[in-house]
Amino acid sequence: MFVDRLLEAQSATGGRLCVGLDPKTGAVKDARAAVRRIIDETAPHACAYKPNSAFFEALGGRGFDLLGETIERIHGVGRLAILDAKRGDIATTAEAYARAAFDVLGADAVTVVPYMGEDAVRPFLDRGGALYVVALPSNPSSAPVIEHGTPPLYLRVAQLAARWADEHPGRVGLVVGTTRPDAARAVHDAGPDLPWLVPGLGAQGGDLEAFERATRHHVVVYNVSRGVAEDASPGDAARRWKEKIGGGGR
Amino acid sequence: MFVDRLLEAQSATGGRLCVGLDPKTGAVKDARAAVRRIIDETAPHACAYKPNSAFFEALGGRGFDLLGETIERIHGVGRLAILDAKRGDIATTAEAYARAAFDVLGADAVTVVPYMGEDAVRPFLDRGGALYVVALPSNPSSAPVIEHGTPPLYLRVAQLAARWADEHPGRVGLVVGTTRPDAARAVHDAGPDLPWLVPGLGAQGGDLEAFERATRHHVVVYNVSRGVAEDASPGDAARRWKEKIGGGGR
Repeated sequence: MFVDRLLEAQSATGGRLCVGLDPKTGAVKDARAAVRRIIDETAPHACAYKPNSAFFEALGGRGFDLLGETIERIHGVGRLAILDAKRGDIATTAEAYARAAFDVLGADAVTVVPYMGEDAVRPFLDRGGALYVVALPSNPSSAPVIEHGTPPLYLRVAQLAARWADEHPGRVGLVVGTTRPDAARAVHDAGPDLPWLVPGLGAQGGDLEAFERATRHHVVVYNVSRGVAEDASPGDAARRWKEKIGGGGR
Repeated sequence: MFVDRLLEAQSATGGRLCVGLDPKTGAVKDARAAVRRIIDETAPHACAYKPNSAFFEALGGRGFDLLGETIERIHGVGRLAILDAKRGDIATTAEAYARAAFDVLGADAVTVVPYMGEDAVRPFLDRGGALYVVALPSNPSSAPVIEHGTPPLYLRVAQLAARWADEHPGRVGLVVGTTRPDAARAVHDAGPDLPWLVPGLGAQGGDLEAFERATRHHVVVYNVSRGVAEDASPGDAARRWKEKIGGGGR
């Protein structure tokens, strides 16, 4: 089960750090070198990696293949690959995305946008994989959408995800930003057992302590991308982030 | 401007048919042959094509390159390419998706999921392209999300999109399904000038007449995928669909 493997990887590395892989360079070979270096240097400190599909797609077909190669390398160092793709479609299209994510690219989990409801989620579960449903993004401009209604939409989504997780325990998680600890606490209450993927540390500047204090959520990975990748020593940066984040494992 | 080019293509073909390209076969060369045949045979009847990123991604990196090649071929027959990718992310990630869609793949427009708000939309506009915001999907399981709140979320999204369209006229449209003519009418009222991309005809079984009667929307392309691709003669099927749909152009 995904969540068990995640907790094992947290025990093995002693922490809850997920390292984001957003290769920004223009040449595939440079992107490959950059991504490999980050994985190899940070593996002792990262329980998971989050390759971001957008940056690989921006490199074209060879970039897309590099995404699969990157996930293979992540598995080679014994870690989990969370494909950050924010896919959100239905029916045979969602099935094709699930095939791409799990069969072609080999990801362990994928991020999914829930606008189109359960149909946007189920094909990924049917294919045996795990997913993180985007529930509470950090960006202020999401407010008119995610705060819409009563309860606010982000909470409705968390409730829906908790229902899907009942059917597929350990395979449905949430993406929860750090910038609104109060809202994150409500999301926690809607599904205390759902694993969380938390972006927004490092370059995006979320407040880890306030978030942790408010939520006290159990299974969390915290993603750091630029804060590791742009450090002169990604390995040292990963170690510092892992220690700062603390916790994890069983 | 995107909408002007779309209306020109509608005048040139005498109709509002968009042909969806969802190659399902396992080999890239077979997918290439199938997609080429559809484009070449249907070009007299299709004002636009909607290549569906998922099916190309499921073919790996060479499939991703085939997506760019397909868009080039669409332009070669003088038609518009609406990349159906349902992307929905923010910040540098959304910028990378916009780069992939417009610079790498050469699409004229892309479908976007609005869960993360304006940040999910703006990078595509900043890059000079057009987009269709998913507003009213056809699938019943979307109801707990899109009908959430007062007004229902789909209407809130249509209102937001209308605001974005004020700043970027002719470049912001909506994806509106046919299955709920009453709801589509409300979406029309929120932004009568926004171009619509309407899936759900053909295999998905929407009722064209009821939809047209209720909405009377001006700039629309109706997408048909399987109803054309799975016909023994895609060209004949496209002509029949074009005639059935009717209208279009200035």
